[in-house]
Amino acid sequence: MKRLLITGAAGGLGSVMRTKLAHLADTVRLSDVADMGTSASNEELVECDLSDEQAVNELVEGCDGIVHFGGVSIERPFRQIMAGNIHGVYNLYEAARAHGMPRIVFASSNHTIGFHTQDTHLQADCVTKPDSLYGVSKCFGESMASMYHSKFGQETAIVRIGSSFEKPTNHRMMATWFSYDDFTRLIERVFSVRKLGCPIIWGVSANDEHWWDNSQASFLGWVPKDNSEIFREEIEARNERPDADSSQSRWQGGHFCDEPIYKD
Amino acid sequence: MKRLLITGAAGGLGSVMRTKLAHLADTVRLSDVADMGTSASNEELVECDLSDEQAVNELVEGCDGIVHFGGVSIERPFRQIMAGNIHGVYNLYEAARAHGMPRIVFASSNHTIGFHTQDTHLQADCVTKPDSLYGVSKCFGESMASMYHSKFGQETAIVRIGSSFEKPTNHRMMATWFSYDDFTRLIERVFSVRKLGCPIIWGVSANDEHWWDNSQASFLGWVPKDNSEIFREEIEARNERPDADSSQSRWQGGHFCDEPIYKD
Amino acid sequence: MKRLLITGAAGGLGSVMRTKLAHLADTVRLSDVADMGTSASNEELVECDLSDEQAVNELVEGCDGIVHFGGVSIERPFRQIMAGNIHGVYNLYEAARAHGMPRIVFASSNHTIGFHTQDTHLQADCVTKPDSLYGVSKCFGESMASMYHSKFGQETAIVRIGSSFEKPTNHRMMATWFSYDDFTRLIERVFSVRKLGCPIIWGVSANDEHWWDNSQASFLGWVPKDNSEIFREEIEARNERPDADSSQSRWQGGHFCDEPIYKD
Amino acid sequence: MKRLLITGAAGGLGSVMRTKLAHLADTVRLSDVADMGTSASNEELVECDLSDEQAVNELVEGCDGIVHFGGVSIERPFRQIMAGNIHGVYNLYEAARAHGMPRIVFASSNHTIGFHTQDTHLQADCVTKPDSLYGVSKCFGESMASMYHSKFGQETAIVRIGSSFEKPTNHRMMATWFSYDDFTRLIERVFSVRKLGCPIIWGVSANDEHWWDNSQASFLGWVPKDNSEIFREEIEARNERPDADSSQSRWQGGHFCDEPIYKD
Amino acid sequence: MKRLLITGAAGGLGSVMRTKLAHLADTVRLSDVADMGTSASNEELVECDLSDEQAVNELVEGCDGIVHFGGVSIERPFRQIMAGNIHGVYNLYEAARAHGMPRIVFASSNHTIGFHTQDTHLQADCVTKPDSLYGVSKCFGESMASMYHSKFGQETAIVRIGSSFEKPTNHRMMATWFSYDDFTRLIERVFSVRKLGCPIIWGVSANDEHWWDNSQASFLGWVPKDNSEIFREEIEARNERPDADSSQSRWQGGHFCDEPIYKD
Amino acid sequence: MKRLLITGAAGGLGSVMRTKLAHLADTVRLSDVADMGTSASNEELVECDLSDEQAVNELVEGCDGIVHFGGVSIERPFRQIMAGNIHGVYNLYEAARAHGMPRIVFASSNHTIGFHTQDTHLQADCVTKPDSLYGVSKCFGESMASMYHSKFGQETAIVRIGSSFEKPTNHRMMATWFSYDDFTRLIERVFSVRKLGCPIIWGVSANDEHWWDNSQASFLGWVPKDNSEIFREEIEARNERPDADSSQSRWQGGHFCDEPIYKD
Repeated sequence: MKRLLITGAAGGLGSVMRTKLAHLADTVRLSDVADMGTSASNEELVECDLSDEQAVNELVEGCDGIVHFGGVSIERPFRQIMAGNIHGVYNLYEAARAHGMPRIVFASSNHTIGFHTQDTHLQADCVTKPDSLYGVSKCFGESMASMYHSKFGQETAIVRIGSSFEKPTNHRMMATWFSYDDFTRLIERVFSVRKLGCPIIWGVSANDEHWWDNSQASFLGWVPKDNSEIFREEIEARNERPDADSSQSRWQGGHFCDEPIYKD
Repeated sequence: MKRLLITGAAGGLGSVMRTKLAHLADTVRLSDVADMGTSASNEELVECDLSDEQAVNELVEGCDGIVHFGGVSIERPFRQIMAGNIHGVYNLYEAARAHGMPRIVFASSNHTIGFHTQDTHLQADCVTKPDSLYGVSKCFGESMASMYHSKFGQETAIVRIGSSFEKPTNHRMMATWFSYDDFTRLIERVFSVRKLGCPIIWGVSANDEHWWDNSQASFLGWVPKDNSEIFREEIEARNERPDADSSQSRWQGGHFCDEPIYKD
Repeated sequence: MKRLLITGAAGGLGSVMRTKLAHLADTVRLSDVADMGTSASNEELVECDLSDEQAVNELVEGCDGIVHFGGVSIERPFRQIMAGNIHGVYNLYEAARAHGMPRIVFASSNHTIGFHTQDTHLQADCVTKPDSLYGVSKCFGESMASMYHSKFGQETAIVRIGSSFEKPTNHRMMATWFSYDDFTRLIERVFSVRKLGCPIIWGVSANDEHWWDNSQASFLGWVPKDNSEIFREEIEARNERPDADSSQSRWQGGHFCDEPIYKD
Repeated sequence: MKRLLITGAAGGLGSVMRTKLAHLADTVRLSDVADMGTSASNEELVECDLSDEQAVNELVEGCDGIVHFGGVSIERPFRQIMAGNIHGVYNLYEAARAHGMPRIVFASSNHTIGFHTQDTHLQADCVTKPDSLYGVSKCFGESMASMYHSKFGQETAIVRIGSSFEKPTNHRMMATWFSYDDFTRLIERVFSVRKLGCPIIWGVSANDEHWWDNSQASFLGWVPKDNSEIFREEIEARNERPDADSSQSRWQGGHFCDEPIYKD
Repeated sequence: MKRLLITGAAGGLGSVMRTKLAHLADTVRLSDVADMGTSASNEELVECDLSDEQAVNELVEGCDGIVHFGGVSIERPFRQIMAGNIHGVYNLYEAARAHGMPRIVFASSNHTIGFHTQDTHLQADCVTKPDSLYGVSKCFGESMASMYHSKFGQETAIVRIGSSFEKPTNHRMMATWFSYDDFTRLIERVFSVRKLGCPIIWGVSANDEHWWDNSQASFLGWVPKDNSEIFREEIEARNERPDADSSQSRWQGGHFCDEPIYKD
Repeated sequence: MKRLLITGAAGGLGSVMRTKLAHLADTVRLSDVADMGTSASNEELVECDLSDEQAVNELVEGCDGIVHFGGVSIERPFRQIMAGNIHGVYNLYEAARAHGMPRIVFASSNHTIGFHTQDTHLQADCVTKPDSLYGVSKCFGESMASMYHSKFGQETAIVRIGSSFEKPTNHRMMATWFSYDDFTRLIERVFSVRKLGCPIIWGVSANDEHWWDNSQASFLGWVPKDNSEIFREEIEARNERPDADSSQSRWQGGHFCDEPIYKD
């Protein structure tokens, strides 16, 4: 690619993937509302509020690929979620439509299906069961991606990210861990497959313990390599086993299922 | 019921159902941003903008049932849809949560699944394929209803309305027509079943020509009685058969699939 | 038929069906451990304890059809259930095998699946979820019928009876009511179809409110005619609406889900 | 329609439908290799061997609808089946493609799925299990229809005819009977729906006893009205109940499952 | 665990697992009706007849985990099966309920589904098809586990054991072999997962040749490591290939499908 | 085996497999209409036109296994396809029936399902969607195999071959590549399993990028070992990425979906 846009580049995941994805394009354009530090040689830094339609339009112009980490990524008051994850997503898709419809990786979340129990084995076309306003907003983003695909042909890889951290840090993450390297390889495939469409992909590594089945995305040729099992002993040593009736043990969304509605 | 709230009471469907549902409660509270005319003896008229959190909170207080027709019901610029169908729905559910969680009939739409082809026979748990920003906003409402049910126990009947008019007026409506009487009977059942949960119900009469299967909602004991077939001759006499490749013939959402994105 | 055996003929259902099924055979042999009153002209009364292998063997001899209502039909201490519904069923199938394998109508029960929620629409091949020791014993009977069919070719109609009474008497029975006439017509079909096999049939009338789908038994040519809806007003007038969280509203098995384990 | 072609017009079914379908077009063109008698006022009689590519091309020219009953309709030596049902079908589709792709009703057969057992409830997308060379040739016709639809947009209604006679004449036909009137109404719908596609439709009346589910074709708006049940007494009086292990009782295809391979 | 109970410890499988599972608890309590030899340092030996309610109650007291191998494990006269596998299972669950509901590993069997053909690929929620009185009794045990879970929250791992021997010894076992080590690892996971529920797990190694899919139990994080393929040559050298029509080749339950009903 | 017949032995695949399969039988009989070169020591060369019933009968006599590569393997005029792939297949099955019904490996093709989109994950029992006359003829062969199995017990392994070449040579083959070695191992298993039946098997290696799921054939114990991924770099270096809207990117059948109907 000539120019890849990564939104939310100052966030936890964004700041890691900024480096991991550097090789994918001549120029990587990074955006956030927060400080992104200094730019590397092939980086462009653009401060941008996703709820600003004109700003997003300019941000997307000239890009031939988008990795959209931007917006709110935890439970927040609705007004914040509406600005970043609803208005922001609309702005992004309108901007993409205006500028040649570059492929989009949309960072969706396991919180779209968080109220499925952990003993449920899910396919990508399962019924959604969001666990929070955040989860509802990610369902909204998936709906938007679907509509722009059906109506305009915009391609999106909807990645329902599990827990993308350096390593799992609690029992539940043994099932949800998504290594940076597996995520990187997935994004590489998304931008190299001959036809993407608008698949829903479980963003999860090849963990022994797992709830999600990526069969429906097998056409991508992406096969995760990492496995949380190597951290089993460490996790079990450092964490008490959660109670069988706690959200950590019961729901796929974990503690998000317990989050209250926050008010501004 | 003591008091039933009907939002969107000045709209096409709302103004009809206002009369049809009068017997369900001692008092019917009606709301809209538009003029609702004069109130009948058991009616309360409340002008209310759904995007006003405080106003909606007051609107819902004291009601033990809600029929939510309010918001935008056709394709509109995103800002209007966001105000009425996204912010408005959030406000409604928060108000309901604050006031005893009265049962809600949520007027969803076939435009949540409009990009399924007409030869597809759908169950309620099918994958959504919205056909418009409007359709996406209705998917959002369904997600919100789901989350408030899983998390707080709020019950909602999600009714994916086909075409609720006095009679069908074009070929496509032979499959999607939903008579006022069948809709009335459905709402009666929703407020009398011992446990509602959060079912998705196809809002459609017992038409010979049909795409939607309500088996998954058979526990409601609702069986539609009307059938568009009695209008077949009239429809075919007054309307040319749409081209096989037109949206009217191809997609369940009909012409909504052709609507552009409107700008303010 | 020359001789039809009806077990459990002194029970509530048995004593009704004794009359309704009289036309099916030249002689009707009735059995129970309890008093069956006086015999009609074409009846033979045989007192028989189902847990007595030899007695059951003699009971079955000479019969070319069996309607098995015998055994325990409510929650009881395990020892009683084991005698009537487990040992008794084994004895019945062994007797049938010894005497030409006459077709059997096995009175199974909705309590084999009682822990499915009432908003679940079930097919005959659904997973069982028994709600009581009684329900577990009926699952056992179904397993026995299946094994004797696979291994020896014994045909059985497994009828998962809902609520077979003169009319429904509470809200839950609006969904589970099985009229005597519909049951009679079903048994007529069972004994006249050219090949029965070992189907599971939901024993339920054509109620507007329903949870069970008999599509998989459509080859029998049995179509129930009665509908609990005609009793709706009466039921709702005489009974308070059960609480949404009660077993009556939540589980298909109703109050059986609340029954404790009884000790002798 | 201006001109409707009916092939196989001298056959049992063809000669009945010739009259029943007369109202569908200004002119009905009839073809067969056998004698078709004298023509009615709006009829054209064309003797035609379906295996003659040029003759079929001329036969189809000028027609805006085709009902294809032609070819072999019982088990025959392969050479005859190949000529009529394989070469003939290819010739028909090539002729249709050359002349504007008029809609086709393809008379397929239950013998495409004859080796399913009678206690199996089938949807239109079930696995085929042909029971004869004839059944295999009808599978071939269905494959051809599918390919011409995917590749060229040719629309076909694939009708898997059960037993289309004036009335059922044996036990098995209680399940498979397809009344002439129901078939006529189906063909009327096929030529009037706005988009046909290439659906598989079970050609069967609304019999109480049945194996086939037409849900997937509900978009046609066709609802059969007749029911073999009115002939039940007559059938059972005139025919002995077939043995449970006979093909009449076991397989959906009935005695075709017993047919040998015929040699020329 | 402080104390793990293993029933059936004198049996073939029990006597192996007694050693393999020793590390799981401070004390391992072993029970059987047969002689269990001498006890190791952390073992308690308890002679116990499973059909003795009081004895079982005492056996279970003080245990915080149960591996239930006890009862009959081959086809036997019904009275023996009823004592060990029916009455015994009831006694075990009642004892567990009385003593804090320790997790149970229930040794179920492939003979619950033995009459599925070997070319059928089964999920855990498949229809059962028991092949023997023994198989029926194991279905009973599964029903009991399900009921105690739904009603009281008792957790059970239902393990449908294939062929758990040191190595496969005939052709059919190439598909059903379950290595001791894989079984051991499964039991370790059962006692360490944060929430078990009541899953059905195929007790089988990672054999190239296989019939059973453990996807629905993937939440356990158990991945079998052994593969019968390493014994292929040996098996084929020492055993004649069974006839294609024999039970060894046809049914998943193998020769159990041929077993007669044994009388006392 | 004593004698294995390989038809189509002069073709691309046939000439490779001739060597690879040599170890399977004492004698390998090879047939084709084209020149097969000189025979190796354990080979018999038989020139044979598959549309010649008598010749095929003689060809099959004395063989105890058949690998049927013969007939047309690309899109051709219908008359050629009818001769080789329709008449020829009938002749082969009749010959097999006459001579002890040796097991048959039938070389079917992905072109039976070519009009499924590449983002569809298919099971073996999926609906066929042939993409060419060639694909239709392979559907015919599958139907024939099914019928001979149901009716006469003839066993066939239906192998839907992807792209069986030395290595993949374009992007689409990354998903469809079927290595010679994996094919060889599959055929070895087909001739050694104790019961074959008539399974449909996807003929494809263990490619990271894939569309087809062989779960339903897991009873064969065949696990492919090769993976196209090792050729990824080479493929991407030598081939331009096909346009997202081209048949190479859209349909599983690739360019066959674009083939016209050829005339003689």
